[in-house]
Amino acid sequence: MNTPDLELPVSVPSTALFTDQYELTMLQAALRAGTAERRSVFEVFTRRLPEGRRYGVVAGTGRVLDAVENFRFDGPVLDFLRSHGIVDEATLQRLAGYRFTGDIHGYPEGEVYFPGSPLLRVEGSFAECVVLETVILSILNHDSAVAAAASRMAVAAGGRRLVEMGARRTHELSAVAASRAAYVGGFSATSDLAAGFRYDIPTAGTSAHAFTLLHDTERDAFTAQVDSLGSGTTLLVDTYDVTAAVRTAVEVAGPKLGAVRIDSGDLLLVAHRVRQQLDELGAHGTRIVVTSDLDEYAIASLAAAPVDAYGVGTQLVTGSGHPTCSMVYKLVSRADTEAQPGHDPAQTPMRAVAKKSLGGKLSLGGTKWAARPRDADGVAEAEVVGTGPVPPELADTLLQVPLVRGGRTVGKEPLDAARDRHREALASLPLSATQLSKGEPVLATEYR
Amino acid sequence: MNTPDLELPVSVPSTALFTDQYELTMLQAALRAGTAERRSVFEVFTRRLPEGRRYGVVAGTGRVLDAVENFRFDGPVLDFLRSHGIVDEATLQRLAGYRFTGDIHGYPEGEVYFPGSPLLRVEGSFAECVVLETVILSILNHDSAVAAAASRMAVAAGGRRLVEMGARRTHELSAVAASRAAYVGGFSATSDLAAGFRYDIPTAGTSAHAFTLLHDTERDAFTAQVDSLGSGTTLLVDTYDVTAAVRTAVEVAGPKLGAVRIDSGDLLLVAHRVRQQLDELGAHGTRIVVTSDLDEYAIASLAAAPVDAYGVGTQLVTGSGHPTCSMVYKLVSRADTEAQPGHDPAQTPMRAVAKKSLGGKLSLGGTKWAARPRDADGVAEAEVVGTGPVPPELADTLLQVPLVRGGRTVGKEPLDAARDRHREALASLPLSATQLSKGEPVLATEYR
Repeated sequence: MNTPDLELPVSVPSTALFTDQYELTMLQAALRAGTAERRSVFEVFTRRLPEGRRYGVVAGTGRVLDAVENFRFDGPVLDFLRSHGIVDEATLQRLAGYRFTGDIHGYPEGEVYFPGSPLLRVEGSFAECVVLETVILSILNHDSAVAAAASRMAVAAGGRRLVEMGARRTHELSAVAASRAAYVGGFSATSDLAAGFRYDIPTAGTSAHAFTLLHDTERDAFTAQVDSLGSGTTLLVDTYDVTAAVRTAVEVAGPKLGAVRIDSGDLLLVAHRVRQQLDELGAHGTRIVVTSDLDEYAIASLAAAPVDAYGVGTQLVTGSGHPTCSMVYKLVSRADTEAQPGHDPAQTPMRAVAKKSLGGKLSLGGTKWAARPRDADGVAEAEVVGTGPVPPELADTLLQVPLVRGGRTVGKEPLDAARDRHREALASLPLSATQLSKGEPVLATEYR
Repeated sequence: MNTPDLELPVSVPSTALFTDQYELTMLQAALRAGTAERRSVFEVFTRRLPEGRRYGVVAGTGRVLDAVENFRFDGPVLDFLRSHGIVDEATLQRLAGYRFTGDIHGYPEGEVYFPGSPLLRVEGSFAECVVLETVILSILNHDSAVAAAASRMAVAAGGRRLVEMGARRTHELSAVAASRAAYVGGFSATSDLAAGFRYDIPTAGTSAHAFTLLHDTERDAFTAQVDSLGSGTTLLVDTYDVTAAVRTAVEVAGPKLGAVRIDSGDLLLVAHRVRQQLDELGAHGTRIVVTSDLDEYAIASLAAAPVDAYGVGTQLVTGSGHPTCSMVYKLVSRADTEAQPGHDPAQTPMRAVAKKSLGGKLSLGGTKWAARPRDADGVAEAEVVGTGPVPPELADTLLQVPLVRGGRTVGKEPLDAARDRHREALASLPLSATQLSKGEPVLATEYR
């Protein structure tokens, strides 16, 4: 949400209010107690994958970097906090000058992850780190959920084209982020113009039943569409009778018709029939696009059908049963005293901290590294997570990269880099990673 | 998303790009065919409720009205459409002057609904109506899903206070809309500052484990919090040992301590123990707030526990298993010819239209009214949906209200009006409506 990049339609002058109230009241209390400037390390991780999933997909990292850059408490934000009595004047003063000056390391976008993977590490004063919790988790939890679903769908589709069409099934701005995450996960295009505008994702579209119904006959509708959009367009053929519609479509557009879309019925059966009919009509190059509540299982079930592309909506943008990840943002290490001016923060003695309480929500304290060694064939063997010095034999397999250094973003990259990385990361996992059936995480997490 | 209302942090100068590409290419084809100005009626409805749900909740209507008002194709939007070759110049010209000039009727926000309920009716030219599909569905599908979950949770909570805390589990702007929808459904407050800013929903907060871990002892942390925020604050008591923490909390804050929060463990058991301990310490007025992956069933299971408030996150903002509704936007009626200048559009002869195809996605054509008659005790008896004249005996029980007339918004109302309406609507349903168990829709939809 970098304002200059955003322009229309998603101009967000500040991300600072995408924040739970308690982040600011904790800051107020820590300021007063003299603990707010204690050097702190927060980590983002998840204790588990959604049930039966074999891997997770990191997505949203680029959006996190934008959000951190734009995390500013300007006039209207401060006025709101003051007029509603949310924090005191000392805190407002601290917030007015807020700029994140610390460091962020993390798994690069598109990378896969497992339970316990230290996905993001945010280091700086407690004051500057604690307030970022909500917006960082919002972005990563949402975007990673969509990317994980997209990745499974891309596996199921083999090399066939996948188009994201879910805007109408989720919040209008979630939809833009969902298109982005779907692209990272392997989708090729989106129906959402805002996603095309904001992230330069290729856009695509077909036609709706309303367009056919607007016209006096299906032939009139097809003629109107082909006259205006050319014979390369995609005609929707299931408003009345599919067989009649396919015949009319080829009569109107000729055998160079781009594609037909089927949005209902037994897609496996209908796709075979339509393919045969198109071939008989000489429209050998006309593609078949299917839609209609597809998920990864429905896509996989069409592997043997003559389908050229899938349009996926609801199940994609809602994470195919898992619309959010369970990522948390936890303080894992902190200094015993406030940072002293002129002192190198990297030299501050730090102590590992973790909650210990009822109910098994145990967290592992300490700043963590993560490595993923591979066997002789290049197949990943384990997700190794540790504290303390990195064993030399793992030094070449570390997963975290610098994203922000001293408040300066260093980890920005084109969206295609994340998309490519995801494909490579997935290819490096054991083969069972891409089974759609329920299973355990394909890599075990080993703690050192 | 009315720009002047929004200011920070969600300034959206136009909602026009929250649109699937095919809406605009259909417009282009219809313009060329001379059918774009045919008077049309689109309706929003759902064919089914989520499995086992007994009623749905309309939410997002106010946001739809803002989105329609702000649906404009300004310079950057037109430049994008032109540079990416999405539509032709004639279409860009039509879009440049776009203002919705038609009528919208619908169920008012907070009302309950059932399969087939005609939730929104959009009337005008095909051109001006078709392009609104995506953003209208995005808003209603998302917001109604959250409101339905909120309503069930409010039922489960009885009169106890519910606080929305789900921002970190959903997209950062979904979170703002989710807070709003949760408020309509019966929640009292939100942790999300952006929702407080944008919709004036009361905000609330407690404290996190990180705050306790930042300090050398739990006592230090509690002292810091009480010193700064007063004894009315809510202390988090499950970082180490709950019994020790509650003792320390009352020692630090005194018996006027506002509340304690429990975020893990067997909440039923722990709440009883904590209540007893608080009472023994003389802190009879100290409230108990529970959090920790609550849903409506977990809330209901705590009905007999001494709990004063629930903080709900993940399950609320993800619709408690149903993160979207299956609402669709369908052309149900249209004129055979284009509107003539000076002609009263209400006098245009219209024809009912509907898709007829494979797979049971049958839609009912024609402009619909909806009524909900009540029995002598004031209990709703059925959801009656019809076309043609309204039977006189149902005239007093109609559900749709005018929202936009001739392009002018007439249906805006304060959020509390929607919240109050929902409470009343729910109270008018048969008692079984509020059973949490799976069941059929509590009112049958009768078609006349």
